[in-house]
Amino acid sequence: METTWLNAQDADFDAKLAALTAWSEERDEEVAHRVRGILKGVAQRGDVALVEYTNRFDRRDVSAMDELVVDQAQLQAALARIPAEQREALEAAADRVRRYHEKQKQDSWHYREADGTLLGQQVTPLDRAGIYVPGGKAAYPSSVLMNALPAKVAGVGEIIMVSPAPEGIINDMVLAAAAIAGVDKLFTLGGGQAVAALAYGTETVPAVDKIVGPGNIYVAEAKRQVFGKVGIDMIAGPSEILVVCDGKTNPDWIAMDLFSQAEHDEEAQAILVSPDADFLKQVAQSMETLAATLERETIIRTSMKHRGALIQVKDLDQAIEIANRIASEHLELSIDDAEQWAKKVRHAGAIFLGRHTPEALGDYCAGPNHVLPTSATARFSSPLGVYDFQKRSSLIGCSPEGASSLAKIASPLARGESLTAHARSAEYRIKKR
Amino acid sequence: METTWLNAQDADFDAKLAALTAWSEERDEEVAHRVRGILKGVAQRGDVALVEYTNRFDRRDVSAMDELVVDQAQLQAALARIPAEQREALEAAADRVRRYHEKQKQDSWHYREADGTLLGQQVTPLDRAGIYVPGGKAAYPSSVLMNALPAKVAGVGEIIMVSPAPEGIINDMVLAAAAIAGVDKLFTLGGGQAVAALAYGTETVPAVDKIVGPGNIYVAEAKRQVFGKVGIDMIAGPSEILVVCDGKTNPDWIAMDLFSQAEHDEEAQAILVSPDADFLKQVAQSMETLAATLERETIIRTSMKHRGALIQVKDLDQAIEIANRIASEHLELSIDDAEQWAKKVRHAGAIFLGRHTPEALGDYCAGPNHVLPTSATARFSSPLGVYDFQKRSSLIGCSPEGASSLAKIASPLARGESLTAHARSAEYRIKKR
Repeated sequence: METTWLNAQDADFDAKLAALTAWSEERDEEVAHRVRGILKGVAQRGDVALVEYTNRFDRRDVSAMDELVVDQAQLQAALARIPAEQREALEAAADRVRRYHEKQKQDSWHYREADGTLLGQQVTPLDRAGIYVPGGKAAYPSSVLMNALPAKVAGVGEIIMVSPAPEGIINDMVLAAAAIAGVDKLFTLGGGQAVAALAYGTETVPAVDKIVGPGNIYVAEAKRQVFGKVGIDMIAGPSEILVVCDGKTNPDWIAMDLFSQAEHDEEAQAILVSPDADFLKQVAQSMETLAATLERETIIRTSMKHRGALIQVKDLDQAIEIANRIASEHLELSIDDAEQWAKKVRHAGAIFLGRHTPEALGDYCAGPNHVLPTSATARFSSPLGVYDFQKRSSLIGCSPEGASSLAKIASPLARGESLTAHARSAEYRIKKR
Repeated sequence: METTWLNAQDADFDAKLAALTAWSEERDEEVAHRVRGILKGVAQRGDVALVEYTNRFDRRDVSAMDELVVDQAQLQAALARIPAEQREALEAAADRVRRYHEKQKQDSWHYREADGTLLGQQVTPLDRAGIYVPGGKAAYPSSVLMNALPAKVAGVGEIIMVSPAPEGIINDMVLAAAAIAGVDKLFTLGGGQAVAALAYGTETVPAVDKIVGPGNIYVAEAKRQVFGKVGIDMIAGPSEILVVCDGKTNPDWIAMDLFSQAEHDEEAQAILVSPDADFLKQVAQSMETLAATLERETIIRTSMKHRGALIQVKDLDQAIEIANRIASEHLELSIDDAEQWAKKVRHAGAIFLGRHTPEALGDYCAGPNHVLPTSATARFSSPLGVYDFQKRSSLIGCSPEGASSLAKIASPLARGESLTAHARSAEYRIKKR
């Protein structure tokens, strides 16, 4: 299988690795311009614009907004309709995801100082969250669970889901997942118009406080443009996996783990790092054999050719050093003592420990979220979580004594910044003797 | 004093309040274009571009990058040079801010299921954070503390501060605050070029993972443009205060609390809400009298005229309802039982409880951060905190038994999404009997 072979001992390794992992999102000015028009249209004309854009972009023929509403009865019907095996798998996955996310819930806290002054933070859920779920070719019920359940656990008042239904078709498993996750309202809207509806609200679609979920280039650009008016999650780049293996895992397993990333799309990135040169060759052989057995062989070959790599390293310490440099979305440590090695990992979206933890388990049902920072943004960001649907307000309650002593600190600082009203507002609270 | 008088019982109140509090950031295409050029210049030409832009925009005459470096000895010298009262106030404020922020530190966590599977999150600090501190006309040492200390408490490896020194002048209190906060490197850089240096790195300035801190329109636009490459905090709008008072606080105190916001700039917003119509008149009278005694009278009058308001409400419940609608950056509850009332507040950057807690104490030294969500973004975002300088990696470690049972859930879901490599990667881990 055509892919890049690298050796970390080579002089030009750093440059080659940097080039391989570089990803700069191309922002298309034409797309940005079109999206601006769509946002404006929905902001100004509401439902009427939504119907127009949806007919045009999703090749539909609806005459009014109510045809774009999917009610709770339809969600429940889809749940009853799908095969039992799928329903049970969705319910089992949802249970596990819910249980894990419960641990992320943050509580209000405060403490009181000796003079009676109270300090703390009050933690509250968002009033309303919007969830974008791609439709059409690829339907991802797992995305419904992963985006809606953290919001639900956070206690968000209302969860609004949008998902396009090109030619009127929407996937039953997606609807079933919405039923299981407790989505409050669902509209068959997609693209920039769906994002606009969530950000500004229309006669029918309520405005939300934050929009999360993956989408195509129009959705990503629209999220960027409404950022500030509402909160958004990260704009995701192509999916990535970095597998570190000591050479003692079945090479077929590792090959398939790499493919589970490469099959997503041509730009997905799958990299294997090992100190065992023979093992790298065995995995390459497994990849060649297994690729031929997969429906998505062409996508896999393209992804491995342009963005994949097999990297030989000196030892596992060097492997972890490279993992920290790449800051991959998914990091699989297919090695002994993976728990101990993980402590040396500084940057990764999710860390999969040991030979029995393929990324695919995390994608669906282990419990942690599958919405993870891509393109090295794990250096500064985190998996989607309950904390993304909660926010904090500082609490400051000064006792008269506390205020008096704090005012004596604040006053010279405010005057040092030439903010006299600040100083005098504080000074009013200084106790006279 | 000229300002807007509203009564919440009036039919057109909702529309008038919405118009008063509306704020849409004007993104200037000309500014965006210039900033793109500056970012490109620094990305391509590094230090040389920084020297050029700094000479041009900050009216300086330096010949090399080393003249834009402020070393630790200079920071310590400034700390020794400022008056004792200022030094002690800075140190006392820093102590309190540090102590409060220690409570925000998040720890790694995990749990183990009955079959031995481990799930959790590993929490790590950023490697490097960049802090922008405005210079020139207004120097804000308190901003240095509020931005650098949470990063320090989080355990960030290196804190890089940038602050412009127009005509070579930089404020001693700002340098002293940097010394106290433990800033690792300081460069006298400002504007888009400073943001570019932090985002891309140059020969001298190390690239950071996240950029925080307030700045002018060029800084805000530059932060927007580098967002994704690095993390950023929120883009701040004009500062706001909403005071809710039952009429039993000294009207001079309330007038000065409003001014402590109005004095920031012409676009700052100060609003008082009270069920007591006479009290509103008394505060208006106090404002008239007190304004004349302040250096920033003109700014205050402009701000109160265009963006300020005195609002009469039916009762305190209605006041809190309005507070939730506005989602103000600062919310002062100058009422009895403020702690109880605060529990009804769903959206606010910071809540100041009781008559002895003016916003100014929170701005400088109470402990909580003064970087707060503006323009109603408190609906979905939080004060700057230690959590902004930490990030999480999911941990998933399946036992062979755990993997086998999870794979049986993942497999039908993956096949339902037509992702066969995912399914097969999972299925390899199913135990054969």
